[in-house]
Amino acid sequence: MSETVHVALDAMGGDHSPGEIVAGALLAVNERDNIVVHLVGDHEKVAAELQGKDYPADRIIQVDSTEVIDPNEAPVMAIRKKKDSSIVVGLNLVKSGECDAFVSAGSSGAILVGGQLIAGRIKGVERPPLAPLIPTAKGVSLLVDCGANVDARPSHLLQFAKMGAIYMEHVLGVKNPRVAILNIGAEEEKGNALVKESYPLLKACPDINFTGSIEARDIAAGGADVIVCEAFAGNVALKMYEGVGSVLLSEIKKSMMSSLKTKIGALLIKGSLKQTLKKFDATEYGGAPLLGLKGLVVKTHGNAKRKEVRNSIIQCITFKEERIGERIRERLDPEA
Amino acid sequence: MSETVHVALDAMGGDHSPGEIVAGALLAVNERDNIVVHLVGDHEKVAAELQGKDYPADRIIQVDSTEVIDPNEAPVMAIRKKKDSSIVVGLNLVKSGECDAFVSAGSSGAILVGGQLIAGRIKGVERPPLAPLIPTAKGVSLLVDCGANVDARPSHLLQFAKMGAIYMEHVLGVKNPRVAILNIGAEEEKGNALVKESYPLLKACPDINFTGSIEARDIAAGGADVIVCEAFAGNVALKMYEGVGSVLLSEIKKSMMSSLKTKIGALLIKGSLKQTLKKFDATEYGGAPLLGLKGLVVKTHGNAKRKEVRNSIIQCITFKEERIGERIRERLDPEA
Repeated sequence: MSETVHVALDAMGGDHSPGEIVAGALLAVNERDNIVVHLVGDHEKVAAELQGKDYPADRIIQVDSTEVIDPNEAPVMAIRKKKDSSIVVGLNLVKSGECDAFVSAGSSGAILVGGQLIAGRIKGVERPPLAPLIPTAKGVSLLVDCGANVDARPSHLLQFAKMGAIYMEHVLGVKNPRVAILNIGAEEEKGNALVKESYPLLKACPDINFTGSIEARDIAAGGADVIVCEAFAGNVALKMYEGVGSVLLSEIKKSMMSSLKTKIGALLIKGSLKQTLKKFDATEYGGAPLLGLKGLVVKTHGNAKRKEVRNSIIQCITFKEERIGERIRERLDPEA
Repeated sequence: MSETVHVALDAMGGDHSPGEIVAGALLAVNERDNIVVHLVGDHEKVAAELQGKDYPADRIIQVDSTEVIDPNEAPVMAIRKKKDSSIVVGLNLVKSGECDAFVSAGSSGAILVGGQLIAGRIKGVERPPLAPLIPTAKGVSLLVDCGANVDARPSHLLQFAKMGAIYMEHVLGVKNPRVAILNIGAEEEKGNALVKESYPLLKACPDINFTGSIEARDIAAGGADVIVCEAFAGNVALKMYEGVGSVLLSEIKKSMMSSLKTKIGALLIKGSLKQTLKKFDATEYGGAPLLGLKGLVVKTHGNAKRKEVRNSIIQCITFKEERIGERIRERLDPEA
């Protein structure tokens, strides 16, 4: 496709900003010629990172901002007070239509609040969920919602299901994605009050391929394509996934380095193991979109490096090309 | 210690009953001479498993029952109707004082409901939580509650914390155990309504060493000794842990078996890797106690084999020796 996608990128967010963020932008524009990245941040610092690098100058635009929102700041207050922060300036580029998407590794809370207050919700969307992709034995699954809205209502979960299915089908190319509700048992009568009320709504919805409950145990095996849940449970599932993966891998690595014998063994399996673990590397899949906003807002991991930033930027192309926002509006706005 | 511990064991529960269950009982009585196991189940089937085995005959007692509760049955109804089921008969042995503990790999729901209806709660305990031990990089942690009480209230979480701390200190020997609340961020103002209300109660409680919030990401690393949570979130955390672990290990195994070269490598690291993975094997730690009941009720995994059954039975010795039930009553009953 030739249509150009404009991405506002928060150069000041995350543990490795601005170096890795700018590096990710350069990877993206050097690889795809239909992307323009608007690098939002401290003029001097961003310029220093660009200095001497090889890239198409017309597709990297510096947008200056003087403030940075710290992850520890209260989100609503930060968005209201820091009008010249990279997050607020970046989101305003989406609001004005100058950019199609905003990508940030900064404060999750500020991005979620700012996304709603500044970019704004698509008409009909009650709550925009954060929907990360998680690697599974069969590919990837979308976990929706993972942190935007704790204490959600059944009607929210139904919307999460619809938006998640659209995303998986049109961005990831999964035909007729299997939608399941996160539960503590497989039977319909299991669960907490929210799940019990949401289950029949999902079951009755003609827009999705609802397959029932999924236990957390079956997520990593690829038991569903879209997993619908309230944000607290989703966040627990997501972070448990990351934590267990990282501890297990680090312990396995240690055991492989424990003697000369194991070191030789490790050398022999290294190539094959790397291939396997790559499948489970969340950074391969870009960041988590905040679904249901006017324009795309993507939250990448706070510790994102250039590869994840690049992937998050490139993800915005498909989002625009596949008209995900319009599809969501068509499906969720009762007047559409 | 010379005091004899009587354990009622559900011979008919779980995927591998009665064979592996009976085998676990024999391991336990052959190893410890202060255990008597009351094997509850179908007379013929249990007798067939005992046939020809070597064990102290005076410490294996067959208790007949003719019914079995299926994991798919509605728990309350099943407990009420199936008076001669292995779960009901086993719990009645605890109620009557004939046994100190009941161990089952059967229907979680029926065990939880039956534990409360038959064995009964310790005075002062509002809700008895299910509290599995999960392996971490630093040892084990107790996740409380993992399935007994969805939609819990703040006062319940406070009791979970107190009971969990007693269990970790006196059964596991962890001095002054670090108690944390499962949350979606580290800051005090983060979380859903339940967490926000529970946090100050935990913080103000002089009986526990409260260390604040813990994110699911930090559980596997060993970030707290006792992790307090509502059962839905706890169940998600627990099952996510099990699912991610099992998928990762199976994928790593596959990659090690993918060529002759990797097979030789696998052979060289096998011993060391086994040692490491043993640490993360939940079956090493026995089953999950249901805390706050009169007598000990232990739920083992549905797929438990002899080793886990053995460990669950042996766990009952410490529970009795350390007077966990009395300690809980002293701490929770306002009149104690």
